[in-house]
Amino acid sequence: MSQPSSADACVEAIRFDNNTLQLLDQRILPHDVSYIEYCDGFKVADAIQTMVVRGAPAIGIAAAYGIALESLKQQDQNQLTLEPVMEALAQSRPTAVNLFWAIDQMKSEWQRGQHLPVDEQISSLINKAITIHQEDITANQTMGQLGASLIEGTAHVYTHCNAGALATGGHGTALGVIRSAHSLNKIQHVYAGETRPWLQGARLTAWELMEENIPVSLCSEGAAGQLLRQGHIQWIIVGADRIAANGDVANKVGTYNLAVLAKHHGVKVMVVAPTSTFDLQTAQGLDIPIEDRAIEEVTHIQGRPIAPKDCHAINPSFDMTPNELIDAIVCEKGILTAPFKRKIETLLS
Amino acid sequence: MSQPSSADACVEAIRFDNNTLQLLDQRILPHDVSYIEYCDGFKVADAIQTMVVRGAPAIGIAAAYGIALESLKQQDQNQLTLEPVMEALAQSRPTAVNLFWAIDQMKSEWQRGQHLPVDEQISSLINKAITIHQEDITANQTMGQLGASLIEGTAHVYTHCNAGALATGGHGTALGVIRSAHSLNKIQHVYAGETRPWLQGARLTAWELMEENIPVSLCSEGAAGQLLRQGHIQWIIVGADRIAANGDVANKVGTYNLAVLAKHHGVKVMVVAPTSTFDLQTAQGLDIPIEDRAIEEVTHIQGRPIAPKDCHAINPSFDMTPNELIDAIVCEKGILTAPFKRKIETLLS
Repeated sequence: MSQPSSADACVEAIRFDNNTLQLLDQRILPHDVSYIEYCDGFKVADAIQTMVVRGAPAIGIAAAYGIALESLKQQDQNQLTLEPVMEALAQSRPTAVNLFWAIDQMKSEWQRGQHLPVDEQISSLINKAITIHQEDITANQTMGQLGASLIEGTAHVYTHCNAGALATGGHGTALGVIRSAHSLNKIQHVYAGETRPWLQGARLTAWELMEENIPVSLCSEGAAGQLLRQGHIQWIIVGADRIAANGDVANKVGTYNLAVLAKHHGVKVMVVAPTSTFDLQTAQGLDIPIEDRAIEEVTHIQGRPIAPKDCHAINPSFDMTPNELIDAIVCEKGILTAPFKRKIETLLS
Repeated sequence: MSQPSSADACVEAIRFDNNTLQLLDQRILPHDVSYIEYCDGFKVADAIQTMVVRGAPAIGIAAAYGIALESLKQQDQNQLTLEPVMEALAQSRPTAVNLFWAIDQMKSEWQRGQHLPVDEQISSLINKAITIHQEDITANQTMGQLGASLIEGTAHVYTHCNAGALATGGHGTALGVIRSAHSLNKIQHVYAGETRPWLQGARLTAWELMEENIPVSLCSEGAAGQLLRQGHIQWIIVGADRIAANGDVANKVGTYNLAVLAKHHGVKVMVVAPTSTFDLQTAQGLDIPIEDRAIEEVTHIQGRPIAPKDCHAINPSFDMTPNELIDAIVCEKGILTAPFKRKIETLLS
């Protein structure tokens, strides 16, 4: 199988070629565009933990390739031993469920093929990772069309964090909808919240949109309320890291603020995520584990301190938005609206 | 008259000694604690514009000293010509009304003394600036006690931007309440929102509180919603840059987000500001001019880019919180609650 590619010309966060994984180093974007090569699944786990690659669908895809790479390393063995790399990958980040979904997909593929010779097992694992990658791109393109269909006329939209090509196999989830809607002349302007502490909005979303000449203005998160109050925004469009069975959404910290502001101003909220983001085993959002990351992400920017020495900080990386603040959840199987629980059960069963 | 000083040991943003104004350079805090000396009112206007000194009450005090300094420069003249420096100061920043209030106070003082010899006019202007400074400190200490009286039991509070000693003549407005409440054992913990783009929360508020061992955790603004949802916060306490006749409040951008979040969660909002912050000529908040500052404040941090080259951004420095989202406005004359318009009229007339 050849490397998956998106139909559009957007940047690729993940490349797989010649049995080597290349991850675009998102820690140094947009100043440096540099890929790091991986041939070791444990190093892929490190790359996920340190956010070389980030974004719920992207870390799922990277994990799948990580398992495939580990199988390749063992091609001279009599049998594959993949549990340790699967465990390392599962430990890399706790919130995005796509990671666990992808590990499970790879585990099932491996178990199905355990009667085969090792080289065939390896081939099937590589092909499965490529399929997961390709299907993610296809899902994003489908979601782009579905989400765009919800936008009436020409809209000003606001997005948070980065749920773009960089966060996925390609095209993006929230930015996939914005890309698709822009191609249909449905996007007047995009406001990108900078998304502290990691500045995904400033560093990644603004860059992705500027690369494709989609009009974007960066803003501090504090400016969102005023923008909404002034009636400037018709839709807030975001991705998700995990969606509980009742439609509650865990996403980048600050998403919940936006959802409350949107409700207060009658602005609509669209969550865009593939079915691999749904976790039917988790009844409600409050049960989703929220990752606390190092406080240096808050007290420092680009390695330089912005706070007093020894300043205490909190750094929850995600927050939880209850389903009642969400107007539509767009996945590749369709558009979900309230009541979410029953519709999620029906669509995903 | 001697230099005003606060009863408590908090940092001084503004010193006046030996006919020289010293401003603590807030652009480089907390890494460097350095005062810049001023003997020229026009340079004080620059200092206000470039945020060497910031915070609504502090820029009013600095402007008063700027006019006094300009009069000193003219001590060999037959008469003082202060209109140009007053105009330069009035142009320095548009939103905080304390600036215009202080200029008016100095203008009235000057006009009252125009029959006096120039050296006596100068003395009266210097004394007036010192009085404005001293009265601000006294007002803050009064507001501290009043605001603290509103806090029941031991509270977790959240503050935004910096409305501390650094933003005033001393003691602070919002942080004055927190200081006073802490001395009464009414503060369990302070959460300081970092306050992008200028990071006043990270650089100034965290520093002020740490200097006095008041327990503080820094957080990204995106984390506020989750904190409130978890029931961690009893009061949001902020300052103000201008309060309209109906009680609408202009304050640092992001304040409005917090007020909406507070309303959604039943958390109380306290605005703390001296009467010099009230603008009875402005009927409602929507009539308050909101300063747009350079977009480089958003696209760069500490001079280094965090966004793509040529990225467009918006940078409204303030937002407007309608009075219905505010539980109490504390000024040195008392505590105001809804209906604000009538009570403001009564208290300030």
